[in-house]
Amino acid sequence: MGPHPAVAAIRLAVRRVLHDILTELNTTAGVPAATAAERPPEPLVLVACSGGADSMALASALAFEAPRLGIRAGGVTVDHGLQSGSDLRAEEVVLRLRELGLDPVEATAVTVGREGGPEAAARDARYAALDAAAGRHGAAAVLLGHTRDDQAETVLLGLARGSGIRSLSGMAAVSGAGGRYRRPFLQVDRQTARKACMVQSLPVWDDPHNADPAYTRSRLRHEGLPALEKALGKGVVEALARTAQLSRDDADALDTWARQAEAGVRDASGVLECAKLYALPPAVRRRILRRAAIEAGAPAGALFARHIEEVDRLITGWRGQGAINLPGKVVARRQGGRLVIRQG
Amino acid sequence: MGPHPAVAAIRLAVRRVLHDILTELNTTAGVPAATAAERPPEPLVLVACSGGADSMALASALAFEAPRLGIRAGGVTVDHGLQSGSDLRAEEVVLRLRELGLDPVEATAVTVGREGGPEAAARDARYAALDAAAGRHGAAAVLLGHTRDDQAETVLLGLARGSGIRSLSGMAAVSGAGGRYRRPFLQVDRQTARKACMVQSLPVWDDPHNADPAYTRSRLRHEGLPALEKALGKGVVEALARTAQLSRDDADALDTWARQAEAGVRDASGVLECAKLYALPPAVRRRILRRAAIEAGAPAGALFARHIEEVDRLITGWRGQGAINLPGKVVARRQGGRLVIRQG
Repeated sequence: MGPHPAVAAIRLAVRRVLHDILTELNTTAGVPAATAAERPPEPLVLVACSGGADSMALASALAFEAPRLGIRAGGVTVDHGLQSGSDLRAEEVVLRLRELGLDPVEATAVTVGREGGPEAAARDARYAALDAAAGRHGAAAVLLGHTRDDQAETVLLGLARGSGIRSLSGMAAVSGAGGRYRRPFLQVDRQTARKACMVQSLPVWDDPHNADPAYTRSRLRHEGLPALEKALGKGVVEALARTAQLSRDDADALDTWARQAEAGVRDASGVLECAKLYALPPAVRRRILRRAAIEAGAPAGALFARHIEEVDRLITGWRGQGAINLPGKVVARRQGGRLVIRQG
Repeated sequence: MGPHPAVAAIRLAVRRVLHDILTELNTTAGVPAATAAERPPEPLVLVACSGGADSMALASALAFEAPRLGIRAGGVTVDHGLQSGSDLRAEEVVLRLRELGLDPVEATAVTVGREGGPEAAARDARYAALDAAAGRHGAAAVLLGHTRDDQAETVLLGLARGSGIRSLSGMAAVSGAGGRYRRPFLQVDRQTARKACMVQSLPVWDDPHNADPAYTRSRLRHEGLPALEKALGKGVVEALARTAQLSRDDADALDTWARQAEAGVRDASGVLECAKLYALPPAVRRRILRRAAIEAGAPAGALFARHIEEVDRLITGWRGQGAINLPGKVVARRQGGRLVIRQG
């Protein structure tokens, strides 16, 4: 008799990702270690584990699959220091990961700043700590426990920005420098991860932040998504996750197109020519305008679709309007048949 | 003192669309009448009016703006025959439109079938009746009262299908043969339309269907969207509407690319070549595969993203797998380095 279906599902998801990592190591692509000679005989894969159901399930699957593929499995837990006793919790997670057979295992404490709001600041601190841990241990990859439900929430958060398909594309299965971060559970639902912990008798910790309505994601999880499912049917989470994948591919293709088209719409001195921009499809033209604004110094995060629309009207709806002010003191103006975008 | 801001907003929205229509008539593009000689001296624009707040507001703005631009304003109301007394209601709407000064005004009764579910069947019957009315009266355009809120709902309905950015692109501002249908209120919110009726003392009718939880759209309107707004903030409707526009432009650009790339990936006899398909960005390749499946006889509405993904794996993950069965008895198989997609 095989393992419980939930356990089989999480193991399969991890096995696929480990296979990918091995394939890439063998072709030397994406190897953090500098040369084959420096690489330890058995590559190390770390799991980032909060002690919650998703990442505990991930850790258990990694502990099971890694030895079978000649991979060493380790774990890191980040103590964000945001709740009293968080250091004790981190030590507890370390013990649990050791009990699963992971080695090395470590807890790493971070100081969460304030930039970008509490969720973004915690995330920045966490990734910095994971980067450092991966570097210290020479890990080939770090696995993250984001599930399909997390992906669906991320798509809805992107939708609320209204800034186009890139923000609908959610989290990538592979991200970070050299493809360090992997998300094996993007097609696995939260319920499966929880079930896998239960049937393996793994104790899990429910982060009170996840239920705190002060957090947008928590409100989305406990109120927004359930209401959407009630209105639209149970397939919403799956549909959102698929939308993420399709949007990511579409956004990548259009970025490629914009990059290729860009050279053709500049004059000899590199200035954008309005007539040539006008001839492009709006989707491509706006991407070129966005890239030009960022190149001129506009911060990407502050540059919204409405800014680009206004600059676009200098091309498509020219009636002698004045210069357009963009974030980062960048100014776009039409001069003769040229579009000049620069700071100051 | 000018009109109430809500009235100013709906009039501005209609004025812009009437300007567009006049510009197109003058350049003879999109003119239903065959030649300039056959065209009546004053073009006619019809409003499709249910008697609800959105389309009554639209009718009032058309009645105000059209004469100022040398346009005749008329109206059509469709009696779907789905509720007892619907014929009397239609007559009442006709009277109200006449009171606004519209001419010609008519009620047209339709028989709603069952195909595609109650909402789709009613819509099909309605557009057939509007097409017929536009033809009968030689109308240059038919205005529809869909608001930004309707657009947001349409985007969420598309999102629930999970079939990519085309289904996120909502309703077009211009659609139908020759651009017959126009939606001036896609940037106007429902509340503004309602307010404009109130301050103009226009009686409006609330269709009980709109509040009937048996309809997906109604559940979305009264439960799904409010819950999303509560979780994500008040800007959700605007963000969804902007997502629609951006997605539409992106989908158009990618369709263009796929159309252009298609010729280059077929061999001399027109069969798709796997190596050439493989070299394309996934977003472009999948669109070509989708077009090929539809061309071979697969019904577009039954062809889902997962079907195309499976066909795509014949290109990207070839391990000797068998033929893929698609809707409409279409079969995709890899033969040598070729991808053959055909019926039977």
